[in-house]
Amino acid sequence: MPHGRPTTVPDDGLTTRQRRARPLLIVHTGTGKGKSTAAFGLALRAWNQGWPVGVFQFVKSAKWRVGEERALKVLGASGEGGRITWHKMGEGWSWTQRDMGSSEEAAREGWAQVARDLTAATHRLYVLDEFAYPMNWGWVDTDEVVATLRARPGTQHVVITGRNAPAPLLDAADLVTEMGKVKHPMDSGQKGQRGIEW
Amino acid sequence: MPHGRPTTVPDDGLTTRQRRARPLLIVHTGTGKGKSTAAFGLALRAWNQGWPVGVFQFVKSAKWRVGEERALKVLGASGEGGRITWHKMGEGWSWTQRDMGSSEEAAREGWAQVARDLTAATHRLYVLDEFAYPMNWGWVDTDEVVATLRARPGTQHVVITGRNAPAPLLDAADLVTEMGKVKHPMDSGQKGQRGIEW
Repeated sequence: MPHGRPTTVPDDGLTTRQRRARPLLIVHTGTGKGKSTAAFGLALRAWNQGWPVGVFQFVKSAKWRVGEERALKVLGASGEGGRITWHKMGEGWSWTQRDMGSSEEAAREGWAQVARDLTAATHRLYVLDEFAYPMNWGWVDTDEVVATLRARPGTQHVVITGRNAPAPLLDAADLVTEMGKVKHPMDSGQKGQRGIEW
Repeated sequence: MPHGRPTTVPDDGLTTRQRRARPLLIVHTGTGKGKSTAAFGLALRAWNQGWPVGVFQFVKSAKWRVGEERALKVLGASGEGGRITWHKMGEGWSWTQRDMGSSEEAAREGWAQVARDLTAATHRLYVLDEFAYPMNWGWVDTDEVVATLRARPGTQHVVITGRNAPAPLLDAADLVTEMGKVKHPMDSGQKGQRGIEW
């Protein structure tokens, strides 16, 4: 059971209080399940702290994340906890009515908005769901992402999910978890099911 | 990106519909972060399906899971989605006023209640948070847990979290994810922080 005790005390001139409030870049990668569900679990903690949370869903399936989306919207509207802003690519991003020409263009538009929000410190936690893919596919420039993340002002935490997160992103991250597949029902022919996969 | 396509089609005489509705035993283990957050992320999907969700928190720290607990309670009380029942060990289980003599006794009481709920099919998703520990410590008999889980009626999904999940549990599981630690801020001396660790 984790006890929250660091193994070393850094010689960085910061107080524990300052060290506790550092902005984190978190990456959930690997081929196993739980990368996105754990990111949305983090959103619950952020909401409970009263933090504004921005979700950017870089996937196109209508079915995906319906549970998380509804839950976070109900929480955001409850009058308790933080504000939730949910943007998704599948139906065009919520800040533009324009039809995107392609997924590639849509992914780039999404990242441009994240960058604008980071500069304006709009949210306290950013969930960039499945954002590893557009970086891997070269749709979004990884070095630019890393530079923008490193330069972000204030205490803005960012969690990025997706398989094969690129190396420069892992280098820049404070916390990386690799979700490894040990066993999956699809291996024995079972299809995804309601309430579990979405 | 996962496409939800099984790699084989099993010769089990079941229809796809039947195969989609099989009860799953899910285990999140490993030394990395995200085991519990991903389990609570699954609870959001279950809630969205209108399923009754039972959370059994086999940990004693008052700080842990405060965000998840408040969020799920707000969701459960929202009048939308499924019912949420939250039991925790730290302050005695919610169904008993009696003071537990020890953590060991409390863990055993918790498991006995899970077993009763499984027999009565009280919930559709069970989150047994950090339940790997009492099994590892011999407080709860792993073989009995596995036998009870195998015999559970209906379509009751169970997710169990914790490091070093015992082998018989992994054998019985349908879905196992190993959360591996790649990088953690505590390695460089950073302490846990609000909104991230709890």
